[in-house]
Amino acid sequence: MAKILITNDDGYRAAGLNALIEFIDPIADIVAISSETEMSGSGHAVTIKNPLRLRVHEDHYKSIYVSNGTPADNVKLAVNCIFDKFPDLILSGINHGSNASCNVFYSGTLAAVIEGAMLGIPSIGFSVDSYYKGYDFIIIKDYVTHIVKKALEFISLHKENILCLNINFPAIENPRGIKVCRMAKAKWVERFEKRIDPHGIPYYWLDGDFVFTDEGEDNDEAIVKQGYISLTPLSLDMTDYNIMDYLRSWEL
Amino acid sequence: MAKILITNDDGYRAAGLNALIEFIDPIADIVAISSETEMSGSGHAVTIKNPLRLRVHEDHYKSIYVSNGTPADNVKLAVNCIFDKFPDLILSGINHGSNASCNVFYSGTLAAVIEGAMLGIPSIGFSVDSYYKGYDFIIIKDYVTHIVKKALEFISLHKENILCLNINFPAIENPRGIKVCRMAKAKWVERFEKRIDPHGIPYYWLDGDFVFTDEGEDNDEAIVKQGYISLTPLSLDMTDYNIMDYLRSWEL
Repeated sequence: MAKILITNDDGYRAAGLNALIEFIDPIADIVAISSETEMSGSGHAVTIKNPLRLRVHEDHYKSIYVSNGTPADNVKLAVNCIFDKFPDLILSGINHGSNASCNVFYSGTLAAVIEGAMLGIPSIGFSVDSYYKGYDFIIIKDYVTHIVKKALEFISLHKENILCLNINFPAIENPRGIKVCRMAKAKWVERFEKRIDPHGIPYYWLDGDFVFTDEGEDNDEAIVKQGYISLTPLSLDMTDYNIMDYLRSWEL
Repeated sequence: MAKILITNDDGYRAAGLNALIEFIDPIADIVAISSETEMSGSGHAVTIKNPLRLRVHEDHYKSIYVSNGTPADNVKLAVNCIFDKFPDLILSGINHGSNASCNVFYSGTLAAVIEGAMLGIPSIGFSVDSYYKGYDFIIIKDYVTHIVKKALEFISLHKENILCLNINFPAIENPRGIKVCRMAKAKWVERFEKRIDPHGIPYYWLDGDFVFTDEGEDNDEAIVKQGYISLTPLSLDMTDYNIMDYLRSWEL
């Protein structure tokens, strides 16, 4: 049976993590690790200056390792301190809220995926485009298990190619299918609300709107909005090869 | 005069930040923002659940805005709460320690750069491959100002192309020049040191070794080791286009 590490960024009590554990437990030998608290927006932060703690939370269904670290820490902790050898696959999520497009940069869910892929472990992030706490993850169970089975098949055939996948589900009852696509161009346009505290000192609350700036329809954000499940393969090589020739004129 | 935002991830007292301010102040209209404390390894974390504070630190040389946020927060704060309109350029650094290769994912210095580029502002990160506190940044002054002048030239000519550059300096007296290159393949191989606290409870310290896994010589890590300054253009599109056709067989 394949060894799979399951993690997330919404903390160990998150419904999405527990749904993922429930879906995958029958088809793999799983270990789950998560954070004590919600870690959304933690990006790829790692804990260097403080020690990490690790405890086991005994659940009615499955025990979960729980740390005081970030999602990236949790992947490092699991592969070093829990597993004897690297797991075959890492799954992260299921996240409440889309991680399509530039959300990859802010997302702890995707940081765990990228961390796994950097270590040479095929990794997949799952997110659903809904913040509704009552969202029923059972809707996407068959898609999740299909993707995990396909990934395990891929891994057994292509050991040299490390999967790093960002999967986003539309929040609808019957998704129209899975589409492979690219990462959309988009950005967050921030607003800061300035308030004054009881001592007369100002403070700022970060808030913002997600602004879609892509013109195509073959990207994750557009595909999810059309009711499909987006499957975006990510590369760890962020080099912009298109501009290299131009920049050579800067060389001294 | 061009408007330039200067920031970093080592906190407002860092020698690298103050060197960058000193180098750029004569050639641009600058605003500097940094964090109260060192934020190395903060990745692209953003502060959603706590309010941000902003104060002005009056220095003998130049005033610096100081926040309790992360490097990505600081870029958002500066462009929204300090500038009337977006700056022409963002500079981040000069970081103590290389940010070549996969360090881009962990680095707050580079998170500020990526955040700026996402907002549509040309952005450059500067790092030096040295943790020596006495490193004399004056060694690289001419290179830094050359790159900034070239960037301002580029921006005035190519408004549609948003620069997102990762520059790494070797820690030597006479760098051999600048080379445009790609991001190296490498990873951190972690070690966790397990210790027992006075109450008998274990805790873990994260430590690790940077392992270079690239075979070429045209990458930032190799180039810095050869004594050159690496200039790596980064793309915000992380899509792995090579694997898309294969993955289409997974579509349901």
